[in-house]
Amino acid sequence: MRILGIDPGYAILGWGVLDMEGNRFKVVAYDSILTDKDTPMPARLQELYEGLSEIIEKYKPDTASIEELYFNNNAKTAIMVGEARGVAVLACANGGLEISEYTPLQIKQALVGYGRADKKQVQQMVKTILNLEKVPKPDDTADALAAAICHGHSSGGSGGKRELRIRKGI
Amino acid sequence: MRILGIDPGYAILGWGVLDMEGNRFKVVAYDSILTDKDTPMPARLQELYEGLSEIIEKYKPDTASIEELYFNNNAKTAIMVGEARGVAVLACANGGLEISEYTPLQIKQALVGYGRADKKQVQQMVKTILNLEKVPKPDDTADALAAAICHGHSSGGSGGKRELRIRKGI
Repeated sequence: MRILGIDPGYAILGWGVLDMEGNRFKVVAYDSILTDKDTPMPARLQELYEGLSEIIEKYKPDTASIEELYFNNNAKTAIMVGEARGVAVLACANGGLEISEYTPLQIKQALVGYGRADKKQVQQMVKTILNLEKVPKPDDTADALAAAICHGHSSGGSGGKRELRIRKGI
Repeated sequence: MRILGIDPGYAILGWGVLDMEGNRFKVVAYDSILTDKDTPMPARLQELYEGLSEIIEKYKPDTASIEELYFNNNAKTAIMVGEARGVAVLACANGGLEISEYTPLQIKQALVGYGRADKKQVQQMVKTILNLEKVPKPDDTADALAAAICHGHSSGGSGGKRELRIRKGI
């Protein structure tokens, strides 16, 4: 199973592609799509959509794992992040991928074992689980890989111990 | 100038196409795209994107006018509306349209003359300005036409009296 993990955002969209072979992960590729703050939002959304569509075309993942977003402060920002997330989901759906969504809590539980883990612990676990030399940068890329690992764990591999509620098709 | 007005939403996306001829509007078409609450969100986003792309293909508007969204309560809903808005903006950008954005305040000022007008007053003005027999339903369609009228007024037609700040390219 080839998993595309996505951490959606309009300035930085982190992504990572992993192969799950039995109980282990193999890193295929990871990076982030950056958009310029001086570019009008419609053009930024186009760049995100086209960039992600190219990644899907190139790596042909079977499934996408996307972090669910929560906000409790700035609704204006929530709308903009929602716009970026919408075109990311559209790119995955138009690419024929199954789409699963996980909350930050679920991702932390899957990687570190408890939901109150901090961001750095999660990132260290990404490095360890994927046997990388260092934590991927920017944080968004590490978070995208974390979402991919979370999906891999919860959809088979580790067998029951890390059962998570998966919300297929968001 | 042919204007596509859009009131974005994930359950109902209102749209309306108007021609501006000198100082007057001619109604071309208006309706709404509905998505089913039992359909997974990625498929709903696909339906919105494809539906709006077909409308753009069919009516070939020059420019799109989209209501800017404000929320002060539910961030979860804001994300979902943002997702729908993102794919709507993407459909317009991919269709080669210029995109302008107006706040609800700007739209009310453009139609009724003052920003505290209520929803019903705006809808009555849509009916009057466009010489319709009744107020278009659902509200989202009337709001989309209001956004289109707002853009028409502010980009020429009525000449200065209703000058609005236009934020081109969002």
